[in-house]
Amino acid sequence: MRTPGTDRIDAPRFGRRALLTGGAAGAGLGAALGAGAVLGIPALTGTEDAPDPAAAGFGGETLPCHGAHQAGVATAPTAHARYLAFALRPETDRAALARMFRILSDDIEGLASGEAPLADPEPELAARPARLTITVGVGPGLVDRVDPARRPAWLAPLPSFARDALDGRHDGGDLLCLVQADDPLAIAHAARMLARDLRSFAEPLWTQQGFRRARGAEPAGTTMRNLMGQVDGTVNPSPEDPDFADLVWCDGRASASDAADVSWLAGGTALVLRRIRMELDTWDRVDRPGREQTIGRTLADGAPLTGGTERSAADFDARTPHGLPVIPGYAHIRRAHSEDPAERIFRRSANYDADGEAGLVFACFQRDPLRQFVPIQRRLDELDLLNEWVTHTGSAVFAVLPGFAPGGVLGAALLA
Amino acid sequence: MRTPGTDRIDAPRFGRRALLTGGAAGAGLGAALGAGAVLGIPALTGTEDAPDPAAAGFGGETLPCHGAHQAGVATAPTAHARYLAFALRPETDRAALARMFRILSDDIEGLASGEAPLADPEPELAARPARLTITVGVGPGLVDRVDPARRPAWLAPLPSFARDALDGRHDGGDLLCLVQADDPLAIAHAARMLARDLRSFAEPLWTQQGFRRARGAEPAGTTMRNLMGQVDGTVNPSPEDPDFADLVWCDGRASASDAADVSWLAGGTALVLRRIRMELDTWDRVDRPGREQTIGRTLADGAPLTGGTERSAADFDARTPHGLPVIPGYAHIRRAHSEDPAERIFRRSANYDADGEAGLVFACFQRDPLRQFVPIQRRLDELDLLNEWVTHTGSAVFAVLPGFAPGGVLGAALLA
Repeated sequence: MRTPGTDRIDAPRFGRRALLTGGAAGAGLGAALGAGAVLGIPALTGTEDAPDPAAAGFGGETLPCHGAHQAGVATAPTAHARYLAFALRPETDRAALARMFRILSDDIEGLASGEAPLADPEPELAARPARLTITVGVGPGLVDRVDPARRPAWLAPLPSFARDALDGRHDGGDLLCLVQADDPLAIAHAARMLARDLRSFAEPLWTQQGFRRARGAEPAGTTMRNLMGQVDGTVNPSPEDPDFADLVWCDGRASASDAADVSWLAGGTALVLRRIRMELDTWDRVDRPGREQTIGRTLADGAPLTGGTERSAADFDARTPHGLPVIPGYAHIRRAHSEDPAERIFRRSANYDADGEAGLVFACFQRDPLRQFVPIQRRLDELDLLNEWVTHTGSAVFAVLPGFAPGGVLGAALLA
Repeated sequence: MRTPGTDRIDAPRFGRRALLTGGAAGAGLGAALGAGAVLGIPALTGTEDAPDPAAAGFGGETLPCHGAHQAGVATAPTAHARYLAFALRPETDRAALARMFRILSDDIEGLASGEAPLADPEPELAARPARLTITVGVGPGLVDRVDPARRPAWLAPLPSFARDALDGRHDGGDLLCLVQADDPLAIAHAARMLARDLRSFAEPLWTQQGFRRARGAEPAGTTMRNLMGQVDGTVNPSPEDPDFADLVWCDGRASASDAADVSWLAGGTALVLRRIRMELDTWDRVDRPGREQTIGRTLADGAPLTGGTERSAADFDARTPHGLPVIPGYAHIRRAHSEDPAERIFRRSANYDADGEAGLVFACFQRDPLRQFVPIQRRLDELDLLNEWVTHTGSAVFAVLPGFAPGGVLGAALLA
């Protein structure tokens, strides 16, 4: 008798190809039910009727993984996110990188579609992606390995900030896979698939997991709250804004201050990831007015202290009857605000709470961190009362690759 | 100017009482919207019309925390769970325990209802509990501190099993709070509230977090899958079964083999919690037939190998044309199965996947672990092919207290 586990057997031929053969191609739900049909097993619904998509749940929902930009940046945030950073193995040369990106692209197509990559040992876990996206970024080391002349100046560790307390556990990396979905099981499965397929090219460096409100728990479009209780992320460019592309997407042109050949980045973006620990025990000792003055917004609905509702513009000139600023000089939103409209970032943060520590996995996308994130963070670093209760303990910058088309491969322009 | 954070100010008077004063008592949604109304802030919907509960999402849904049994045992599983274990401080005597349970009961009432406990610094995070339950259990040390004669024989570390590899990081504890909800933010907030309020009575010992499929991702009633891809938990008593109470709820009567006075446990239950690490890398090398034989069920839909669908009974006598058992002798479901209907447990597991390790937070409820969990685990420990890929690394037993009524207090019978 063969003992499972002692010998390596051909990868199961279940998944995308089998499904296509079975005529069950299509969106997630069809694939999930089709999987049973291919094997002659009754589908989960147990009826002969067409399934009711609503009753089947959102697990089968998919987001396209192809396009000019990768998914997961401008697409609507999901409930869960996991950042997987890797360090390239010394032997991973340009040819190996080409193989690696080919495999990554295949995995992304399989996992995002719910059809499961070819060698997925658990296609049932892939069958309900729940809007899964996988967004791939490259770090300074990877670009240098291809061609140092192609590395933009911003693709480097951020300049240090006085209050930084980086502990080395969530810093840097050569390669990043950002996995997002509305379902933690879909993310766990995809993350394992990616880590396994990357194993011969790179070693895991660090992982960060984040969450927002569960999908369906709140009215659509509700701004998330962080673990300090604040409405977090109100002032954020919208992908519908006319200047969104200029703020977020790289255009591939060299800049006056940076002669690097960044043509491979057209359609990509720069990700700044900061791990921000919150000192909730001392924060809780502050009364509500104190906390609202620290931020410059009300806790109840996130409206600026100068009135209105969450989306109202803050009036930084407003004064109290005593002549003091309504939004104090040390308030977080005043320090984060810039009069220069080009000095904005596109935020996409999530909460973390594990191993006795809580905080924010702060992520932002922009065309050039040195012109966008850095000046904002410089002001916050210099003066922001919120600094009493937050500490940046991790920092990384990645170039998010441009998107890819069906039949294409991620990173093709970089390796060309 | 007062500097927030440097002085301790009265806890904010926002929350349950304020809401009740404002006439906004009731279920979660009303409370959440009412919170704004009390402060004169427009509700989130921004309209004068009655809110649409469906559009508002399930965050406002609440489960009753009062009753003969605590919530979170027989109530339907939620998407997320967190187990918080504590070690009592040496000075926590019987009088302190009475105060502790009073505070815990208040917190549970406030958090489960969405109305926020009185001293909750972030009532907005409490306002959308998403079916939050908090289930309190006591460990051997707590009962001994009250009266060793009241400790049932099963309320002790489990007998050791040959394959156990307990690493001391998730074992035992004097007090357990199991926090469950469909929303991770609701859990994070409740867990912090509990830890803070327990601080003067107990120290945090360990935490475990688990997840199932996100709420709404799958058809209601779908059995969860674990990270090995298996349908997990099919054979499980239902709270509607006529013998469920006999299997799960303690009746408060001493048994022939145990003279302890367990009258304080009537309506409670015994929780066995095992942390089961999965060796997914080697598991993935097994082909699908090998994995299905290991469990005794198909991967596609969890039907027993003897046919039918997920809920079909396994035919342990069935043989192949070659005379071999269809469900092998080493198969997990055969080893877990007992011919004695009293030797059953009520499972409620969740997946974990963090810090480079994945597995199952295995939880089961029963009247007496020595007669229910232990004989099952003994058989699995002796022979179960699944043991090649799973290792028990944590173990704890708690007596889940009986429920409490409005105006009552958890643990009252124990301390009487």
